[in-house]
Amino acid sequence: MFNTIGVIGLGVMGSNIALNMASEGDQIAVYNYTSDLTDQLVQKSKGQPINPYYDIQDFVESLKTPRKIFLMVTAGKPIDSVIDSLVPFLEAGDIIMDGGNSHYEDTERRYSELIAKGIGYLGIGISGGEVGALNGPSIMPGGDKDVYEKVAPFLTKIADQVGDTPCCVYIGPKGAGHFVKMVHNGIEYADMQLITEAYTFLREKLLLPIDEIADIFATWNQGELKSYLIEITAEILRKKDERTGLSLIDVILDKVGQKGTGKWTSIQAIDNGIPSSIITESLFARYISSIKEERVIAETILEGPSMEQQNLDKDLWIEYVRQALYMGKVCAYAQGFSQYKMSSDLYDWNLPLKDMALIFRGGCIIRAEFLNVISEAFEAEANLSNLLIAPYFAEKVKEYQFALRKVVCEGINSGISLPCLSTSLSYYDSYRTGRSNANLLQAQRDYFGAHTYERTDMAGVFHTDWQ
Amino acid sequence: MFNTIGVIGLGVMGSNIALNMASEGDQIAVYNYTSDLTDQLVQKSKGQPINPYYDIQDFVESLKTPRKIFLMVTAGKPIDSVIDSLVPFLEAGDIIMDGGNSHYEDTERRYSELIAKGIGYLGIGISGGEVGALNGPSIMPGGDKDVYEKVAPFLTKIADQVGDTPCCVYIGPKGAGHFVKMVHNGIEYADMQLITEAYTFLREKLLLPIDEIADIFATWNQGELKSYLIEITAEILRKKDERTGLSLIDVILDKVGQKGTGKWTSIQAIDNGIPSSIITESLFARYISSIKEERVIAETILEGPSMEQQNLDKDLWIEYVRQALYMGKVCAYAQGFSQYKMSSDLYDWNLPLKDMALIFRGGCIIRAEFLNVISEAFEAEANLSNLLIAPYFAEKVKEYQFALRKVVCEGINSGISLPCLSTSLSYYDSYRTGRSNANLLQAQRDYFGAHTYERTDMAGVFHTDWQ
Repeated sequence: MFNTIGVIGLGVMGSNIALNMASEGDQIAVYNYTSDLTDQLVQKSKGQPINPYYDIQDFVESLKTPRKIFLMVTAGKPIDSVIDSLVPFLEAGDIIMDGGNSHYEDTERRYSELIAKGIGYLGIGISGGEVGALNGPSIMPGGDKDVYEKVAPFLTKIADQVGDTPCCVYIGPKGAGHFVKMVHNGIEYADMQLITEAYTFLREKLLLPIDEIADIFATWNQGELKSYLIEITAEILRKKDERTGLSLIDVILDKVGQKGTGKWTSIQAIDNGIPSSIITESLFARYISSIKEERVIAETILEGPSMEQQNLDKDLWIEYVRQALYMGKVCAYAQGFSQYKMSSDLYDWNLPLKDMALIFRGGCIIRAEFLNVISEAFEAEANLSNLLIAPYFAEKVKEYQFALRKVVCEGINSGISLPCLSTSLSYYDSYRTGRSNANLLQAQRDYFGAHTYERTDMAGVFHTDWQ
Repeated sequence: MFNTIGVIGLGVMGSNIALNMASEGDQIAVYNYTSDLTDQLVQKSKGQPINPYYDIQDFVESLKTPRKIFLMVTAGKPIDSVIDSLVPFLEAGDIIMDGGNSHYEDTERRYSELIAKGIGYLGIGISGGEVGALNGPSIMPGGDKDVYEKVAPFLTKIADQVGDTPCCVYIGPKGAGHFVKMVHNGIEYADMQLITEAYTFLREKLLLPIDEIADIFATWNQGELKSYLIEITAEILRKKDERTGLSLIDVILDKVGQKGTGKWTSIQAIDNGIPSSIITESLFARYISSIKEERVIAETILEGPSMEQQNLDKDLWIEYVRQALYMGKVCAYAQGFSQYKMSSDLYDWNLPLKDMALIFRGGCIIRAEFLNVISEAFEAEANLSNLLIAPYFAEKVKEYQFALRKVVCEGINSGISLPCLSTSLSYYDSYRTGRSNANLLQAQRDYFGAHTYERTDMAGVFHTDWQ
């Protein structure tokens, strides 16, 4: 009996990927280092071509050569352990794919180690959560192009399809696939935070009932904001708690976790001189949420502004919030894609920016209409340094900035924190300032540390004895 | 002939440290891996007890035992090379001190390697730029306490003195000294950026002439903002360019460099769940300054708000800017000291927060009156989690927040980017929000990724099938 492909790691994501592959008709070998998850999957997959193995050697030997093995294992040491246990049974030409959230630098190390043994290695970013894994995720494979070609038919089959386009495209060499997934998650953090801030304004400033806010999000989901995250926000806001009868959201604790990819995105940006203020601010918003105990104390000590509550025109301000959210998204995605562009140049990856926007349209968490417009911007100008200057977005933000400024100021004057909306605006205004006052910083550095400066009117490096 | 102490690395900082030590009457051995810098120092130090060596073994053998060797070498590999070249000539009980800007994790590695050989190792943060190094810097030594005790007389002698207090205190084990210097530099970045934003508002919004702005900074330097950075800003703004006759600042290019410590501060915060949004925003401001070519293009494409220019009451708004700057500083230092506190707990370092504020009062770049008030806050409550809730600062920000809100909104409505002032406000308002809307984020995470959530009304971990 020869299986077409093997899956190791049968948690929620791994099981669903295996079921997704099996639904395409291929014989799938599955293995987990504990047998319980294997048994569960076998139960669940009755009648489907899923074949369990309880010994790693049996698993490997059941696969057609060249073998294709898909790892859906927790990132970090577990991946290395699984690879170590596989290698003795593999032959040159076999292919290992890591579909988890590995750090792209780990992927590059594993790639180099395995290629030395003649084994192909692909780091594959997968987004879509558990439902996406089952029905069709967005897939971002990185590694050698010729190795990718050998598994491309499987990957494109299990990916989500938007029209005729599978949400799977070859991303680039070595760790590029996992890198793109990492920054995708950073963008996702920012997008979620921006939505939360829009919700905050509607609820705390406009004082709208939660059901009305749900309706507003549902309405927004009919227009240019249409996206998975807006859609689920509407559904979340409608959900009632069975225990208390309250809106479920109102009994959920305001402490947010994170799994690493968002913070890796910020660290990579910071380490390489890449402005990523909106994504990073969304990460800090999670961190501040985590120190809940401190916040509860601070609330009793630190005062807000003395509010004069004026009546805002509801419909007008709902539209302001919509435009502010849209412009915040434009700025956040501009930063994310600029991080792709700068990193692609830095690592010499030649990332397919336009195609990345296309595969993000389906399967993944940030899927949205919006990504069509982004891909069109890169279609028109493949080397676009920043989405903001693409004609479509430049025109949009010209129109919407008024609303964003209104909403952020209203938040400030009401003592409502809107960190990502406000950082989006700072970024926008910094980015469009040709001549900034950063010269003062450089003068300070030269004053106290002799760090030197350049001049605007002649080439060279200068130092002044300031005293 | 036996020297009391030896200095290796005779760049500007190393030469000045050697001269500083020699001025205390001790015989100082000096060595540099190229002889030119050694010769320069010998020229400069005629009549002072500075004794040059051109061979590392001669240098080591000239030192009294236990030997005390101070490294002022470029951070990174050069430090390791110097240590490797020293070790063969050292004995158990000798002490190496690294006075450069090493990453604290490198210091911890070197500490462990050397302690295994019986050699004491101190990672010593030094702040004060070249002038401080000569006349008295702020010194932050980390390593074994008993090793520190052996060199404490030298370090306290060369440190700046504020009243009777030397700006040198034992910081903590292993890399703690370099860690404290690192975050000090992050705070410095934020402080510099906040000052730059105050300058920006005075110049671009209030349209004040540069000489008047210099006077304003000089006046501020008489009050609660009194600090080295405010003082040098006034002097910088007064300096004329000899070539053009313009204000020198106006011919300096608006691209800002950085040497690493600021970015390490942000990375350490991000990696450990510590909110450090103001310091990080100041780093991003530098990064945005660096993409000058992009900004120059963006300026021609992206529009600002259509301004209705109204007349602002000048004196009133200068005072608003002063208060905004002060409150921004409080928030930035609150984050920096909270990073110290959280890291101290994390690494079990028991950092002496009160004493750190005291040694920052002199010698270093962030020296300021302000640090007296900070040290008093830690005097009153050694385990203070955040400076903002100390009574003195809570009262100040209660009063000054109005001005900060005014200034940030005026900047927003004028299209002037004030990223750190605005992030300070976001941080303030987030931190004093006991019940935030981060529950929506957690609900989204549970919706698409089954990441679970906690409840406000009962213990446990929950997951909802949202659809």
